[in-house]
Amino acid sequence: MRSVFFISDQTGITTEKLGNALLAKFPEVEFRRETFPFIDTPAKMSQVMLRVYNRYLQDGEKPIVVSSVLNADLRKIIEVDYAHSLDFFQAFIPQLEEALGVQATQKINKLHGISDEEKYNHRIDAIHFSLENDDGVSSKNYHEADVIIVGVSRVGKTPTSIYLAVNYGIKAANYPFAELDLKTDHLPKSLVPFHQKLFGLSIEADRLHQIRSHRLPNSKYANITTCMDEINAAERIMNTCGIPFLNTSHKSIEEISVAIMQMVRLKRQY
Amino acid sequence: MRSVFFISDQTGITTEKLGNALLAKFPEVEFRRETFPFIDTPAKMSQVMLRVYNRYLQDGEKPIVVSSVLNADLRKIIEVDYAHSLDFFQAFIPQLEEALGVQATQKINKLHGISDEEKYNHRIDAIHFSLENDDGVSSKNYHEADVIIVGVSRVGKTPTSIYLAVNYGIKAANYPFAELDLKTDHLPKSLVPFHQKLFGLSIEADRLHQIRSHRLPNSKYANITTCMDEINAAERIMNTCGIPFLNTSHKSIEEISVAIMQMVRLKRQY
Repeated sequence: MRSVFFISDQTGITTEKLGNALLAKFPEVEFRRETFPFIDTPAKMSQVMLRVYNRYLQDGEKPIVVSSVLNADLRKIIEVDYAHSLDFFQAFIPQLEEALGVQATQKINKLHGISDEEKYNHRIDAIHFSLENDDGVSSKNYHEADVIIVGVSRVGKTPTSIYLAVNYGIKAANYPFAELDLKTDHLPKSLVPFHQKLFGLSIEADRLHQIRSHRLPNSKYANITTCMDEINAAERIMNTCGIPFLNTSHKSIEEISVAIMQMVRLKRQY
Repeated sequence: MRSVFFISDQTGITTEKLGNALLAKFPEVEFRRETFPFIDTPAKMSQVMLRVYNRYLQDGEKPIVVSSVLNADLRKIIEVDYAHSLDFFQAFIPQLEEALGVQATQKINKLHGISDEEKYNHRIDAIHFSLENDDGVSSKNYHEADVIIVGVSRVGKTPTSIYLAVNYGIKAANYPFAELDLKTDHLPKSLVPFHQKLFGLSIEADRLHQIRSHRLPNSKYANITTCMDEINAAERIMNTCGIPFLNTSHKSIEEISVAIMQMVRLKRQY
């Protein structure tokens, strides 16, 4: 078991992601992780480094410190001989300065702050849009949607729509194929005018059965035959109507969202 | 204007975040960014590098290539003399191997994949929970919530709840203080049993006026006096009842979410 500290002068979100991507390359090691966001003064930094030191004494091994700190005063405090320091600004900024021929700013600038009011508002609007147009509640705002995600219940439409809004500022509506919709070969009437915006999600019957069973065990809804029938009907409609779709069985929300961005050629909206 | 390529064998989400954090340190340079996710074969990589080469000819300057590629075959293709290459695995993995005393795996492992079924289901549940318990629609699931966010309309409750669910697997409900609630000094009845789970958001009147005007221009709802009165009343309730709260005026969703995680001592749930 090795101790890892993520330290950032901002939210620490990127530092954590970077650190976790690196640690994932060592699947045989167990890690104890702690994140310290908003460490933007020497006093706060000294306090965190005291914890790192105590952990070093406790573990008998040097903790790993993953950080993104460019400020020279803070850097001095973080560079100690009782920890392994990986700082991603320090690793790349000198290279970038050379490539670009300009000096990096020493200012703490907010990566996850409200830098551009208009873009930020757009993202908040997208989140509200996705919520208000979840689960096919109404089609009256479909003209405003960037994409309308279709598929059977629990195929992943809602989490994907939300993720697209939160992370890309995409206005994503979603429409669940209901029993009646699945009895036909054509698109539900309300979707026809928006054919070009539709993107489908499909899934393997086993996986859908598993997901639905988690929600409503032993129900008709979760029954493997129900799942198979619904999936077949949905894929038939999507194939007939030429709607691109993706199998989500072994894909996370992140993977589905990035794939949709790519396939529908959507541009990040903020 | 400098061209930047983000290249990843996975979703590219971390690579983009890392790259953007670095580029933000050069505010005087304009960047043209392109992301290429799922580049996991030599053929795909060669295709992307051809685009990099063409861009080099067009720009007359070397593009910046930010990548996270550990596989040796792919690395060979990416290391060219017509681009500046910043690869974050290459920068840190050797250091980590030394610190940990083990070799990194060469396998492409999925950082944003479904690695742990149970944790993944938990996150999906959290997203559905936050949606179903948005905007105070019902209090019947509050016993299940990890946190219940309170505040006046458009203070940022919904985007924050959604972000906490998507990124941390936190079950976040939210309750808007309505006109009637704001006339009293005590908590709305439905919230009383869950006092310990409450976290408040507040905001400056100017900013709220701006946000509400964006939604409903020239309405009573957006009026600066309405905003001031509502905020004062909400803060009075939160102060009287000992509910911790945060001013969101100059904070992004990310900053608010990380602050809540810290203040409420919530643990990432996935």
